[in-house]
This record gives sequence, structure tokens and C-alpha cells, in this order.
Amino acid sequence: MLAIQFSDIQTAAGRIAPWAHRTPVLTSKTLDRETGKRIYLKCENFQVGGAFKFRGACNFVFSLTPEELSRGVLAYSSGNHAQAVALAAARAGTKATVVMPSDAPRAKMAATAGAGATIVSYDRLKEDREEICRDLAEKTGSSVIPPYDHVLTIAGQGTAALELMAEVPGLDAMVACTGGGGLLGGCCVAAKGINPAIRMFGAEPELADDVWQSLRKGERVSIPPSLTIADGLRTPSPGKLTFPILQQHVEQIALISEDEIRAAVRFCLERLKIVVEPSGAVGVAAALFGKLPADVTTVGIVISGGNVDLDQLAEICR
Amino acid sequence: MLAIQFSDIQTAAGRIAPWAHRTPVLTSKTLDRETGKRIYLKCENFQVGGAFKFRGACNFVFSLTPEELSRGVLAYSSGNHAQAVALAAARAGTKATVVMPSDAPRAKMAATAGAGATIVSYDRLKEDREEICRDLAEKTGSSVIPPYDHVLTIAGQGTAALELMAEVPGLDAMVACTGGGGLLGGCCVAAKGINPAIRMFGAEPELADDVWQSLRKGERVSIPPSLTIADGLRTPSPGKLTFPILQQHVEQIALISEDEIRAAVRFCLERLKIVVEPSGAVGVAAALFGKLPADVTTVGIVISGGNVDLDQLAEICR
Repeated sequence: MLAIQFSDIQTAAGRIAPWAHRTPVLTSKTLDRETGKRIYLKCENFQVGGAFKFRGACNFVFSLTPEELSRGVLAYSSGNHAQAVALAAARAGTKATVVMPSDAPRAKMAATAGAGATIVSYDRLKEDREEICRDLAEKTGSSVIPPYDHVLTIAGQGTAALELMAEVPGLDAMVACTGGGGLLGGCCVAAKGINPAIRMFGAEPELADDVWQSLRKGERVSIPPSLTIADGLRTPSPGKLTFPILQQHVEQIALISEDEIRAAVRFCLERLKIVVEPSGAVGVAAALFGKLPADVTTVGIVISGGNVDLDQLAEICR
Repeated sequence: MLAIQFSDIQTAAGRIAPWAHRTPVLTSKTLDRETGKRIYLKCENFQVGGAFKFRGACNFVFSLTPEELSRGVLAYSSGNHAQAVALAAARAGTKATVVMPSDAPRAKMAATAGAGATIVSYDRLKEDREEICRDLAEKTGSSVIPPYDHVLTIAGQGTAALELMAEVPGLDAMVACTGGGGLLGGCCVAAKGINPAIRMFGAEPELADDVWQSLRKGERVSIPPSLTIADGLRTPSPGKLTFPILQQHVEQIALISEDEIRAAVRFCLERLKIVVEPSGAVGVAAALFGKLPADVTTVGIVISGGNVDLDQLAEICR
């Protein structure tokens, strides 16, 4: 039995409805022509905080008791989860402390601080963020909001797929990127709960292929710290709760090269006129570079976020 | 009596409906907070061809007789009108020839050629595009589609405001950028036709302030060739047909510096996650930099387009 059920996602949808955007689904004739498929893009780059992470953070924060809320919340994150927790905490009237790697994108750090959170920096290549977070939690009594490996987080992320399925009933496949597997896992449970025949695909960078390796080996594999440009997908391994979901539901993981990620970001800018961060572009890259089966024709792709530093965007544009 | 009436815009709306997108209207809490107003962005960067110009081109092309269509269409343009005419001609099954300045953005030239048009280049600082175009028209018998100074062009552009007013009934003001005045003029007639009390504002670069000068002087002023980054707004003077519309309906022209234009493009990328070309960002800049009256609170802004070369985007991001 998986950690989360379809009903958890329905509950999450109701809980976050007052706070999260029901993001638009975009289509593009150019994208359909280039891929030979009918593509529907669920644009979480237009979500509050610029990424799907707000869904999970909101679901978690608004599940806390008043007493728990009074002691604040804590999170570790390379960026989007940090900002999401900060924004969700502000809406719930509580304080957030976020443990962020010192090389996190500046835009994400600024946005997290701007939402009122306290930032604690650490060295991503040397220190263990979970440990730092546990120490802080012991001192303060704050609730730790895991970025992916928690029922409430996974269920919140799955609401993106719930909305996409409701808006486009005829999908025969769905693609989401995977770092720790919270988004992909949640989307699997949501999409399969509505249509058990839908085919689910993940997309991850070649340089951070822990989910691909793990599924192949049949157990959770941990990879060394990755320097992929897709900073949201650098997680070293799938989660304890998310991995069984991916094992049960994911047909295949598309591996995306760094050049393909950059090309997909450029395609989104130039042709779709939308800003997608590298992590958010891997799903689009899977479709653009022929990494989905030929008999999959109507595909929903979750664009996970749009938070990218302008200087990084400039570098990608050149 | 003005050259175009409200009924021309209604007719245009029906004529272009099968071909043009009903573009989305976006809102942003960040933008509202920064401006102290409630802002509604009519996103013509998501229009076919990436700009509002497709509306006017479609209205013109689909007004031609079969006999006229058989002799093709001709246009002169710095880019978006060129692409729009090429795309509209392709949909009507006729050929387009477009006279473009040799320094037009590469993305716009490529897209125009990609839509099947023949491109004739000229030197923007030395040659007269209208003359080149007239010569070609004499030789070929093709219909010239003026970029702004024609009833059908103006009426087509005005459909953007018609849609915006229908979607957001409570606007007390509308802002559009102005080069030759086709978009702003059409939007004036559309918006005032629905709500005569609505206040209309133009926005143009300080470096191409021909409409501002013309309205101040009470007659059409022609300025030397401009090098403003807003390449769509380099037109030297307002049109013969558009100027009387602007005189009657426009309350004020906001002048935008080059730095403000760049900052508005960056704001759209970073906060709204959308790609807006410099010309399209001047309306946003008018709101962001306090150039609208304080008593204007609910404002519709037409984002004219999103066609910008990636290397120019990179330069703006830095």
C-alpha cells in the first residue's frame, strides 16, 4: 500500500484552494508541430512563488494545529520549496526558518527573505542540510516541512495533476520532472486515480539520474552532489515514500542532457514567451527531443517553475 | 468625424475571430503592490505571431476580394507587422512580400521568412520604405497593407481593447504603447465605444516621442530616425488617420526612458514569468514608474508583443 491515496490529494485540493492559483494550461501549435504530439503545459511557473512547491507547503502548513503553528515552521531547500514555505507560513501567520545552500540562485534567496523567512546558509558540498534542520527543530520546536518525502507534501504537489486532468480530460500521458519525486509521485497518484490507464513519465537531468538508476536497480540509489543546471533536481536520491509510488506508476524516466535543458528553456522563451527555469524545462525537453514513446499522442507536461536568476537566463540565451 | 467607428471594430472582431487568439488577461499581486493600482495585462505577446499586429493584418487580408488576393499582399515593417502579414497571407492562401529594415531583429526576420513571405531589405537610416513598397506594388499589383494608417488596420488592432473591456468591465483607464498609433487609436475607439468615461493613455519611448510632441503642438510632428531599444515604436510620426483619434481621445502620453523600458522587460521576466519585447514593456513601465495619474486605480495595459532576439534579451537581463 502506497503512503498516499487519491483521497489525500482531494483533501489537499480543498485545503489549498483559498491560497494557491489554479494555474493556466497553455498550448502551442509550434510545440505540437515540433513534437508531433498534442501537448498541454500546466504552467506552475505562474503559481504563487513561481513554482508548484507552494501547493505542498500550503497543504502542510494549513494542516498544523494552532499550537504547532505558534512554534513556527522549518524547511531545507535549494530554493523553490524555501520560498513556498516562507509564503505559506506568512499566509498562515507563522514564522518560517529556511536552511538554504550558499550557492542557491540569488532570486530564490531574495524571494525567500522577501516573504519574511529567516535564512540559514550552508555549504551544499560539505554539510548535511537535514542534520542542520533537525538541530534547529530541536532547539525551537518548529515543525519541519520536508521538501518531498511527506504525505502532506506529496499530496499537495499532486493537486497540479488533478487540475490538469480536470481541464484536459483526454490525456493519454503525463510528464513531470523529478528531483526527490514529490511532484511526480503526487501527480502519479492523482492522474491514475482519475484514469488508471494514463501513462506516467518522469524527466530528470542525465547529470542527476538518481531516480532513473533507482528504478533500474529496484532500490533507492544515492548519487554524489550534482552540478546540473537544473538546480531544483539536484536531490541525491528519491524519497522513502515517493520511491514506491514511482516504482508502481512510472513507465519510464526520460534523461535530459544539459544542452537539451538549455535548448528547452530557450524554446519556451522564444516560442512560448514564458520564463521556465531549467528544472521546469526538462519535461518540455523530453517532448522536444523525442524521448517519449511514439504511440503517446496527447500529453500533459507539468512545467514545475519559473524562478531563474536573470544572469543565468542571460547565460542560457547566448 | 474620425476615420473609424466603433462598428468597424465590431466587424473586425467577427472577421478575425476564426484566426486570431483571444489572448489571456494576466494579473499580478506584485505588480499591483508595486504600482498601487489594480492592473490587468492584455497579453498580445501570446497572439499569433507574438504580437497584436496579427489582428490588423488579418482584418485587412480577409477583407480582400479573391481577385485582389490572387495578386498577393505587400507590407513594410520593422518586424511584427511583417510577420503578421506573412502569417495572415498564409492563412488566406496568398503570397506576401515584406520590406524590412536590414537591422530588424533577427528573430522577426526569421519568423517572417518562416511564414513563407519574401523579404526585401533596405537601409532604415537612408532609404524610404514607403517608396520601395509603392514601386513594388506598381510592378506586381499587390495590395499594400499599411502597418497603422489604414481603417482596416486600426480597426483590427482595436479588437484587443474590445476583448479586454469584455473580460474586465470595471476598468477606469487603459494604456497602450504608440508607434504610428494604430494600436492606441484602435483601442481608443473600442474602449470609448463601450465606456465613454474610460481614460485613455499612451506610452512611448523618450527617444521616439513623436506622438507626445505632435499632441503638444496640435499637429503631426516628424522626428529623425530613432535608435530606441523599443524597435516597434521607432515610427517617425503618428499617422494621418490615427492622429485625429489620438487628439480626440488620449488624455496623456507617458514618456519612458530606455532604462525604464529595460527594467520593465526585466520585471516581466522575473516577476510575471512572461517574455515581453521592449516595445511591449513601455505600458508596463508607465505603471511601474508612476507615470499614470494617482486617481486612476483600475488599469488595463495592452502588452503589444513578445518578439525579442535571445541575444538582446540576454543583454537586457544583465
